Amino acid sequence: MDIRSLSSYRIPRSSLDHGTEEQRKAVQTIIDDVREQGDKAIKYYTAEFDGVQLDNLKVTDAEIDEAVTQIDERMLSILQEAANNIASFHERQVQQSWMTTEENGTILGQKVTALDAVGIYVPGGTAAYPSSVLMNAIPAQVAGVNRVVMVTPPGKDGKVPAGVLAAARIAGVRDIYKIGGAQAVAALAYGTESIKPVDKITGPGNIFVALAKREVFGIVDIDMIAGPSDITVLADETAVASEVAADLLSQAEHGELSQANLVTTSMVLAEAVSEEVDRQLEELPRHEMARAAIEENSSIYVADTLAEAIEAVNKIAPEHLEIQVNQPMEVVGRIRHAGAIFVGRFSSEPVGDYFAGPNHTLPTSGTARFSSPLSVEDFVKKSSIIAYSEAAFMLNAQKIADFARLEGLEAHARALEARFKSEEK
Amino acid sequence: MDIRSLSSYRIPRSSLDHGTEEQRKAVQTIIDDVREQGDKAIKYYTAEFDGVQLDNLKVTDAEIDEAVTQIDERMLSILQEAANNIASFHERQVQQSWMTTEENGTILGQKVTALDAVGIYVPGGTAAYPSSVLMNAIPAQVAGVNRVVMVTPPGKDGKVPAGVLAAARIAGVRDIYKIGGAQAVAALAYGTESIKPVDKITGPGNIFVALAKREVFGIVDIDMIAGPSDITVLADETAVASEVAADLLSQAEHGELSQANLVTTSMVLAEAVSEEVDRQLEELPRHEMARAAIEENSSIYVADTLAEAIEAVNKIAPEHLEIQVNQPMEVVGRIRHAGAIFVGRFSSEPVGDYFAGPNHTLPTSGTARFSSPLSVEDFVKKSSIIAYSEAAFMLNAQKIADFARLEGLEAHARALEARFKSEEK
Repeated sequence: MDIRSLSSYRIPRSSLDHGTEEQRKAVQTIIDDVREQGDKAIKYYTAEFDGVQLDNLKVTDAEIDEAVTQIDERMLSILQEAANNIASFHERQVQQSWMTTEENGTILGQKVTALDAVGIYVPGGTAAYPSSVLMNAIPAQVAGVNRVVMVTPPGKDGKVPAGVLAAARIAGVRDIYKIGGAQAVAALAYGTESIKPVDKITGPGNIFVALAKREVFGIVDIDMIAGPSDITVLADETAVASEVAADLLSQAEHGELSQANLVTTSMVLAEAVSEEVDRQLEELPRHEMARAAIEENSSIYVADTLAEAIEAVNKIAPEHLEIQVNQPMEVVGRIRHAGAIFVGRFSSEPVGDYFAGPNHTLPTSGTARFSSPLSVEDFVKKSSIIAYSEAAFMLNAQKIADFARLEGLEAHARALEARFKSEEK
Repeated sequence: MDIRSLSSYRIPRSSLDHGTEEQRKAVQTIIDDVREQGDKAIKYYTAEFDGVQLDNLKVTDAEIDEAVTQIDERMLSILQEAANNIASFHERQVQQSWMTTEENGTILGQKVTALDAVGIYVPGGTAAYPSSVLMNAIPAQVAGVNRVVMVTPPGKDGKVPAGVLAAARIAGVRDIYKIGGAQAVAALAYGTESIKPVDKITGPGNIFVALAKREVFGIVDIDMIAGPSDITVLADETAVASEVAADLLSQAEHGELSQANLVTTSMVLAEAVSEEVDRQLEELPRHEMARAAIEENSSIYVADTLAEAIEAVNKIAPEHLEIQVNQPMEVVGRIRHAGAIFVGRFSSEPVGDYFAGPNHTLPTSGTARFSSPLSVEDFVKKSSIIAYSEAAFMLNAQKIADFARLEGLEAHARALEARFKSEEK
């Protein structure tokens, strides 16, 4: 793994994948077809892309029951424990509506309301991601969303992976449809005969899913569109090279565009980690992908001081940051930009991917400068409340009318003055 | 104004204006030019579109001082009082970082950090909007954003309207540039010699500004892209027709695409409001625009019961909702979707546009189903904190590794097991 000087670091200004012209057109066609033809279009594209002809799009309770029996007891209890941890963390994010009252009778406030309906996209393909089910569905449930719908592409056998259905059962999601790709996103946004539309779509997916989400954004809300995963480890001479290397590789295995950086004050550690990465890479089953990620997108940076290293981390704004230095908690306050901060030797990044409780959906590609982890807040919205008393109105209406006229909005001023006129009668 | 039956109401599924092909290309060219040529491109486009050749893009302190002297004392004190109200409401939105500690030493938490830098777009042209300066800048200041930059197109005289500069002074914004349009958005996103890039761009603008914001979204964050303004008044027979009509017209004057609906349980009120709207329209200076909005996009709906009327309001999901019924506060809990709720006779909508304190940047076109008013939360982001203790790690690491292997992510499992190996040595 390359060791570079900090000065060689380029600030990543995130670039979203906008797809090719062909991909964008294909997505537009699929969306139009689903809007016009509903379930018929869905079934057509499911046959075309997933290679299976489905009569029934909805996963039955019997199918879920069967899936649960296929997962062993120990794994079910791990999933349940993870779900409990996720629920417990996200419950801390619940916000209350609030109001202020004034002596003149005026009330101002902010009302928090859960979204009516949310659609969760769960990717299919070779890997099944039960953790993605938990990380999206549980915050929605904690928020109090009335209808949580899940969509996921079926395999060629017309089935959904057992782990995904077991996770859905644990997360309390019952409304599950065997559809994927842009057609699933279109169905969630516009509705079909068998799927009612939702207000927001969350969850990861391939380029077609991402493009479809961008396309329907505004009709419904969407979560962030994630780029490749990244990790930065901030370490000093007290870190254990083999552990740091293993953590870097855990991100690198996600795909060849993944980024895994080490920023360290110790040249000794830098060299040891570099060697360990090369050694551990050899033994990884997904080593081609991990090797590409390491060789093309990842580096070790050596800083003169901890302050300089921290400044570099803030420039990177990593999705995942591990702090593996002496007294790591003292550094947390100096981190301005990171999706999730893993503090100390035993906070290996996968602890957060699956189990600890905080969400694993995090801002990638430097967007931690302005974005947050997926949270309960993504599943609620707020309404302002303004209840002006007559006393407050009479005291202020003329001032407000004058302000409106400063902006050239005469009808605004007259709306206020209409109350004076009525009162004078 | 038309009176219709509720059954004729079509649910508005919001459609964002994506501009014409020509507009999108123009915006792309401007962004590319600003990225490549910086200030030179900015000055070129400012000459081209705003008709003024500027040597200095930045507004000087002397210019701000001069602007303040042009606004009379009474108006300055109204602006100041509005600013105080806005600050006071938004201070209630400030969220604290939090942590949970467990007996085994584990700490989980959520760290709230203000964005480093924010750019506020203030539209120019014939109308100047000091209220827009206050409503965008104050939440950013309350959030603790370190650098708040304002951009606004200059007039042909090379000046920025006095009201806008006075509002900026009151809101504590000093970093103001005389640039507008797509070139201003590009400068904020990518930076030029004289303007450092920001992390988020907020504020309303014309179609070129909106398209440019969509284009740079992902490089920086943006606020919502607003559609035409809308209001719905929910009223019973206790409402005053002339006041309801005046409130409807206050939204209609924003533009011909504006929507102003009345949903009422009273046919008597419906007819009276309809007549009042026609009468008051005649006397309005901007009556052409308001008339188009009323005739083409606005209606009065008559419901049989209050429950039915409330359901209609929730379908509309209005940007502004006025509740002008007997015991209006009792209805608030039944409103699920609205940007801002104005309760009772003296909560005329313009009270919220300028003065009461809640933000006037609200979700339009039915997006209140999933979006919230602009708030302090738009100017902060969160980082999750995971500090796993050795005890918690040793208790759970094998379970987490098994979960990772269920998803086929071997390197994740090994990152956890690397700690066992080191400990065994």
